[in-house]
Amino acid sequence: MSDASEPAAMRLGRFVAETGWGDLTPALRHEAKRSILNFMGCALGSARDPAVDRAVRVLMALSGRTDAGLIGRPERLDVANAAFVNAVAGNLLDYDDTHLATVIHPTAPVFPAVLAIAELRGRSGTEALLAFVLGAEVECRIGNSVSPGHYDRGWHITATCGVFGAAAATAKLLGLDAAATGHAMAIAASQSAGLIENLATAAKNVGVAAAARNGILAALFAEAGYRASPTAIEGPRGWAIAMGDRPRTGELTDGLGTRWEFARNTYKPYPAGIVMHAVIDACLELRAGGLKVDEVSDVRVRGDALLLARGDRPVDNERDAQVSIHHCVAAALLRGAAGVAEFAAAFVADPRAVALRAKVTAELDAGLPRGAATVAVKTTSGRTLTATVHHPLGSEQKPLSDTQIEAKTRANAALSGSGVDPAPLIEAVWALDRAGSVGALVQAAVARRS
Amino acid sequence: MSDASEPAAMRLGRFVAETGWGDLTPALRHEAKRSILNFMGCALGSARDPAVDRAVRVLMALSGRTDAGLIGRPERLDVANAAFVNAVAGNLLDYDDTHLATVIHPTAPVFPAVLAIAELRGRSGTEALLAFVLGAEVECRIGNSVSPGHYDRGWHITATCGVFGAAAATAKLLGLDAAATGHAMAIAASQSAGLIENLATAAKNVGVAAAARNGILAALFAEAGYRASPTAIEGPRGWAIAMGDRPRTGELTDGLGTRWEFARNTYKPYPAGIVMHAVIDACLELRAGGLKVDEVSDVRVRGDALLLARGDRPVDNERDAQVSIHHCVAAALLRGAAGVAEFAAAFVADPRAVALRAKVTAELDAGLPRGAATVAVKTTSGRTLTATVHHPLGSEQKPLSDTQIEAKTRANAALSGSGVDPAPLIEAVWALDRAGSVGALVQAAVARRS
Repeated sequence: MSDASEPAAMRLGRFVAETGWGDLTPALRHEAKRSILNFMGCALGSARDPAVDRAVRVLMALSGRTDAGLIGRPERLDVANAAFVNAVAGNLLDYDDTHLATVIHPTAPVFPAVLAIAELRGRSGTEALLAFVLGAEVECRIGNSVSPGHYDRGWHITATCGVFGAAAATAKLLGLDAAATGHAMAIAASQSAGLIENLATAAKNVGVAAAARNGILAALFAEAGYRASPTAIEGPRGWAIAMGDRPRTGELTDGLGTRWEFARNTYKPYPAGIVMHAVIDACLELRAGGLKVDEVSDVRVRGDALLLARGDRPVDNERDAQVSIHHCVAAALLRGAAGVAEFAAAFVADPRAVALRAKVTAELDAGLPRGAATVAVKTTSGRTLTATVHHPLGSEQKPLSDTQIEAKTRANAALSGSGVDPAPLIEAVWALDRAGSVGALVQAAVARRS
Repeated sequence: MSDASEPAAMRLGRFVAETGWGDLTPALRHEAKRSILNFMGCALGSARDPAVDRAVRVLMALSGRTDAGLIGRPERLDVANAAFVNAVAGNLLDYDDTHLATVIHPTAPVFPAVLAIAELRGRSGTEALLAFVLGAEVECRIGNSVSPGHYDRGWHITATCGVFGAAAATAKLLGLDAAATGHAMAIAASQSAGLIENLATAAKNVGVAAAARNGILAALFAEAGYRASPTAIEGPRGWAIAMGDRPRTGELTDGLGTRWEFARNTYKPYPAGIVMHAVIDACLELRAGGLKVDEVSDVRVRGDALLLARGDRPVDNERDAQVSIHHCVAAALLRGAAGVAEFAAAFVADPRAVALRAKVTAELDAGLPRGAATVAVKTTSGRTLTATVHHPLGSEQKPLSDTQIEAKTRANAALSGSGVDPAPLIEAVWALDRAGSVGALVQAAVARRS
């Protein structure tokens, strides 16, 4: 029973503590595995990135423990720091999952906490999956309650809401009761941080990773008896109002256990800004229809104001390319693909990509809905070929298939040189609900010591 | 030279990197020692509190390292977690120092970072003192730039600004250059958190302690090569604006190195809310003038609106008593003192204190400035004795003497049963600028293994 006067953290704590594996539909259970598989591939893809190397070096010097494994690496760390490193790795490619209503990347702050604590405390596969779903649900609902103002004001919502999800998931794995789980989330409220101003820098990854670590710590402190204000989330000097929003508390608690925000999670087929995906799909459609890139005279891309605001920009580097209409067109038409290689420095600087980007213009089409795009290519022979995409691959309406997520995972795993074979990892994720522990998953994800 | 277009984090980074021990006046150097001594006493007083016990238990299980000592305790931890525990202890009594313009408690988030990193890296006493002053200065200036809106909106300013101070101080001890120091602060911006809604709970201490830990980590990541947005503090989607204030950037950078906010630090003589201090001093004055508590018929306290808003309240527990006009009168008149014992549960529930509190009424006197109070006692023989205090002991105008800070430290040290002798600790603090390392200070502060 819902009680309108019950503070949000305590209501969410009760939801997390009282929900069991049997309460999750088969579709939700499967979505959890898809999210984890997608995350694991992203983390493997970045496992040897200098940003991850540096994080491991700093944190190995701090911690002498070896309780938890690192994805794609041979080292082990304490649970808090292991979760930090795995979250850095999983988020670094900007290729992880997206809850489109909030633009939260749900898995990066939550699953690293689950993986580390489940390994430390010997929890089963179903316990890990359940904790992950509940953490991600709490995270997305808290995000809904303050969207879209929260992100627009400068808060990096994956980090600021992720800490609640990591706290809730950890509390579930620790077996905390309803009240202690609520206090874990209320303690997490005093740890919520992360700025859009830092989005283009490594400080973004610190923010997401700190959410995983701080969520773990909030739950461990709640387990040890620390308490916080029950109204830490929605109170007059609490989280939402301090951050600038009067929270819509209905989004936090209405339909808990029946309406699942986590069920709306999506996975990117391309490591580009999500609003670029319709542009890419339209170009791939034209190419598949027989368009030869040498025939392209000029390209006109039409879309809504958001597409133009985000994507009509000069390209100086790889980060620009990920949010450039011009570069997305060049990649899809030149290579028939828009994977990690198409957004890497070598291809971004390729003279053929530079030349094709120069042929692209973008214009507003107020009649097109958000996320849609029309691409019109004029050829050297004077023809005009047009494709319009309303629901790109990876959207809620056209989700990636399991096979496509597996292929993405294999492609990402090949990036890092970690030596991790993705086949047993993919197998371990799909088998997670039959595993007595997360040990097999961890073993499949970590690198052998070379 | 100041450059108006230089981003705040980078300007502050340059200030921290370029300021040397020789740039600190003798008064500043001495104020640093006074702050450290006051902090050490507060931390000793709480060293065996259950909140500290629990923090040590949680963090010992995470960390296997022993790089840094804990004040008043025998255990050792890694630097990040040691700083966390020492910050919890130093802030727990609500008896630490106050920068009155911002209500920041400057030392609790900054000095624990300095102590741990100086021990780890073998830094000298002057290096530790310099890093501490610079960190505290950055912290108070960033607080000034968003005060008073920041605190009023729900941000616990000691935590939210403390993380910048801890980052700056750590960066100084690590020997980072100007740019890397700026990036350490810009990374810290993405870690700034802490809520007024949680002020009455242990989550407050987690917030202050996390500021110390996260400041250390921000600097260690900057040392390892992580970078952030130079405009993380004042940019359009940066720290100040996301948190709700258009920052007054002049407060950040004007007069750096000549006008020192840290010089305005103050120390509480009583573990009560600061606006209560004039009430206590007026009562002590009356008692010293010969007033006998048995003669008291009724007590009228007059002050400004803030005094009444904060202090005219029923007393149910120790936390209420710390901000109760009625209890502060009872303590000062009954005991001639307002120390930790006078705000402990036993005395708060003492029938004589309960009876005297019932004789106290409070009323507005709009003619009195903030921080002042008048106490008028009517006696059973019909006399009225009156005292007015404008600048209580511990204010900027009437600071605690060194001898009074020493006495406070001895009294606090006696509270915890840590077994730490305050005499050599006091000696080590005064001698810190002549110490080749912080080793003697740490040795004097930690408890022997029993």
